[in-house]
Amino acid sequence: MIEFMIHLQGDGNIPLYEQIYESIRKNISDGKVSQGEKLPSTRFMAKYLQVSRSTVELAYEQLLSEGYIESQPCRGYYVCDIADLYELQEKSLYPKENLEQEEIDSKETKYLDFTADGIDYKHFPFNIWRKIHKNLLLDDRDEILLSGDGQGEYGLRNAIAKYLYQARGVKCEPDDIVIGAGNEYLLILLSQLLGEKKHVLMENPTYLQAYRTFENIGYQVSCVSVEEEGGIPLEKIRQVAPNLLYLMPSHQFPLGGVMPLKRRLELLKWATEDEGRFLIEDDHDSEYRYKGKPIPSLQGIDSHGKVIYLGTFSKSIAPSLRVSYMVLPKDLKKVYEERCAFYSTTVSRLSQDVLRVFLEEGHFGRHLNKMRGIYRNKHDKLVSVLKKYPWVKKIHGDNAGLHLLVEIETTMEENEIVEKARECGMKLEGLSAYEVMEQKGECFPTILLGYGNPSEEEIEQGMELLNQILTAQK
Amino acid sequence: MIEFMIHLQGDGNIPLYEQIYESIRKNISDGKVSQGEKLPSTRFMAKYLQVSRSTVELAYEQLLSEGYIESQPCRGYYVCDIADLYELQEKSLYPKENLEQEEIDSKETKYLDFTADGIDYKHFPFNIWRKIHKNLLLDDRDEILLSGDGQGEYGLRNAIAKYLYQARGVKCEPDDIVIGAGNEYLLILLSQLLGEKKHVLMENPTYLQAYRTFENIGYQVSCVSVEEEGGIPLEKIRQVAPNLLYLMPSHQFPLGGVMPLKRRLELLKWATEDEGRFLIEDDHDSEYRYKGKPIPSLQGIDSHGKVIYLGTFSKSIAPSLRVSYMVLPKDLKKVYEERCAFYSTTVSRLSQDVLRVFLEEGHFGRHLNKMRGIYRNKHDKLVSVLKKYPWVKKIHGDNAGLHLLVEIETTMEENEIVEKARECGMKLEGLSAYEVMEQKGECFPTILLGYGNPSEEEIEQGMELLNQILTAQK
Repeated sequence: MIEFMIHLQGDGNIPLYEQIYESIRKNISDGKVSQGEKLPSTRFMAKYLQVSRSTVELAYEQLLSEGYIESQPCRGYYVCDIADLYELQEKSLYPKENLEQEEIDSKETKYLDFTADGIDYKHFPFNIWRKIHKNLLLDDRDEILLSGDGQGEYGLRNAIAKYLYQARGVKCEPDDIVIGAGNEYLLILLSQLLGEKKHVLMENPTYLQAYRTFENIGYQVSCVSVEEEGGIPLEKIRQVAPNLLYLMPSHQFPLGGVMPLKRRLELLKWATEDEGRFLIEDDHDSEYRYKGKPIPSLQGIDSHGKVIYLGTFSKSIAPSLRVSYMVLPKDLKKVYEERCAFYSTTVSRLSQDVLRVFLEEGHFGRHLNKMRGIYRNKHDKLVSVLKKYPWVKKIHGDNAGLHLLVEIETTMEENEIVEKARECGMKLEGLSAYEVMEQKGECFPTILLGYGNPSEEEIEQGMELLNQILTAQK
Repeated sequence: MIEFMIHLQGDGNIPLYEQIYESIRKNISDGKVSQGEKLPSTRFMAKYLQVSRSTVELAYEQLLSEGYIESQPCRGYYVCDIADLYELQEKSLYPKENLEQEEIDSKETKYLDFTADGIDYKHFPFNIWRKIHKNLLLDDRDEILLSGDGQGEYGLRNAIAKYLYQARGVKCEPDDIVIGAGNEYLLILLSQLLGEKKHVLMENPTYLQAYRTFENIGYQVSCVSVEEEGGIPLEKIRQVAPNLLYLMPSHQFPLGGVMPLKRRLELLKWATEDEGRFLIEDDHDSEYRYKGKPIPSLQGIDSHGKVIYLGTFSKSIAPSLRVSYMVLPKDLKKVYEERCAFYSTTVSRLSQDVLRVFLEEGHFGRHLNKMRGIYRNKHDKLVSVLKKYPWVKKIHGDNAGLHLLVEIETTMEENEIVEKARECGMKLEGLSAYEVMEQKGECFPTILLGYGNPSEEEIEQGMELLNQILTAQK
């Protein structure tokens, strides 16, 4: 393996990844390392340079995209023959921007993305999106510049209320909805309504972002393992004695379970036993269901104002949009009015208006239908491909959302599989990455396979790679 | 005065303001009230219906814009002759949207806006803004959909760092900057870095939004009156013994004072005396200065990492943009990395990229120069108009920002003036609206006059109205 002398400057004038990129690039273009030599792994390099692994990855990706190095499946990164690189590109002032362009130009060097939060970007309705922006940015539309309603624009809240009622059975008025820039912000805002010193119970495994947000808020956070039939049993809740439950009843993340009606009613009843108890329903990706009837929200069967409903457009439109919403029970809405109505909105007026038009004009419904079809095909492809392989012990959490879980019969460790996959140019995650506490009695590694991002072809490719990794080991 | 029977339905299906609008409209169009009758004041109506005053105002504005009622300066609202209204508009599903369009169509019924946070919307560079959006929304720019950097995109942070260094003498690297959707969000985020149970000292009067945010965070908040020469004296700070100072040293809001260098150095020294002490510098509108040299930031003379610098594009571009930024000292940046780096950004990728291009391509600099000229002219016009009137006792806080203060020699109370002005179709605020605690020894009412929004002609008009109000009283 080759060695590089890399001196990093910590003064921040040049981003770290660019310094690493530049050192290696210079070594290669100066001929100090020769074609075919293997680069240190990103893990080793990160440890050696005392930087984060993603910094090294960014540097390697840049080298890859510019053709200095190449990735050999399951082996690592190797120095290319640069004699062919007759034109070394000039670095622009804005490296990130540049990098992105390169990434687009050379898609073959991109990772196959099987992470659970990947979505399909190829079918985004750019045309409609552009047209709506154009119409809203006309010269005389001053209102697009005004600060607007702190709770979110009435029109958007109205459109969301209608959608939620039709699609999710959520019973709410526009007045109950608070728009915010992402679920984490909304949870922080919610904590200002609920007050300090709360004790929240979460399912294990769960969304770590929410877990960490609650920790930062200063809440006591407990976790209980999710049961096979979905949700947390009532007796365990009574043992832990929290004020708040954070739940994903329609599609538990990451396990994909659906909470049965009986358990939902139990939890609602539990919540009514004390004034300070609430259920936080995070309905993160229930737009996508490929089999059976859609499952109405927990909020829809609550008649005591005990459910705080959270939703987002991150999966249904794009994560970069940063628009989420929270439906508050009347009592909490009153507290919001008193304590938090003075806050300015966290979503720009333009984003809100674009989204409102997208919903009102029916584009959102059509987009969801289209994407549901695309995701269903990807889902079916992934399931059918997986069925070919003998190492697939069990598939969980399929038929909904944008990922499934695969229990793998292998002697390899879960993180070893993840690691190997990454070296082969494939991003995926193990179930343990979402565990707040370790699960007992697990026999086999379980991998999350997100099919939102890859094409059907890439799904086949990726699973073949995974097969090579798992069979090479035997 | 006429009386209406208005039954409000609280089920939220129809917004309250629309119900009020509809009741009155129906009474008028059915001929139940006749031309020339006076409507109850918005204050009376709000009390009577048990709704907020802004709800009634919205209803009245809608009636005004549709020609059912008219506003007679200093007298109130009267029913119009509707025989001329040969076409009653059909209400759309989206009343707010509709209302806005109406508002644009009938500018003569709009309030003259002299509030301190008004900005000029007529000179917004819609053309450039549209073009940048269009270029960024091209079909193959997938990256505009990706979730991106939680801290904010590197490119935007880089552009902001350069701007801050050149324009405000702020010494920072892109890595020290955290982008967020507004100052209030950033203060909440900051509290997660600083930890619980802090004691913050603010100037009185001050930004109430920040005051209320600190209260909601659970901080102990103390206030000390700002002195004539700018800032809070050191001995008072020692008395109160806070951990944090919230300051606006370059242009105190709302008084407009500038903190002298000697006091700045004193405060910096105070902060270094204890590890947990920090100065929060809110540099809210220092882009606009019409006389003398620009005043460099407090952050720029801090060499001990004691200043947290906050800035926003709300005044320099538009409040609806919802983009602010915070420059963290290295130590706090480390805490951010550990505790908060997992948070997704609160600003959409598109907003960030548009802003980056706006800065990088020099549009922002040109826009600021243009607006500085426009605001200077408005400022000069307002000052010269004010000099005509004998009731102007003193003008404070001029020559910078977007508002000034006028001390008025009158027997009227401050809120009486504000009230009367509103009835005459003019929005302005009294100084006491920004006081956390009442100031002692005040003799005369002091009014804030924002000149960001009104045109020079409207400034003349508005001041003539104010003159009528004040002289009618004598």
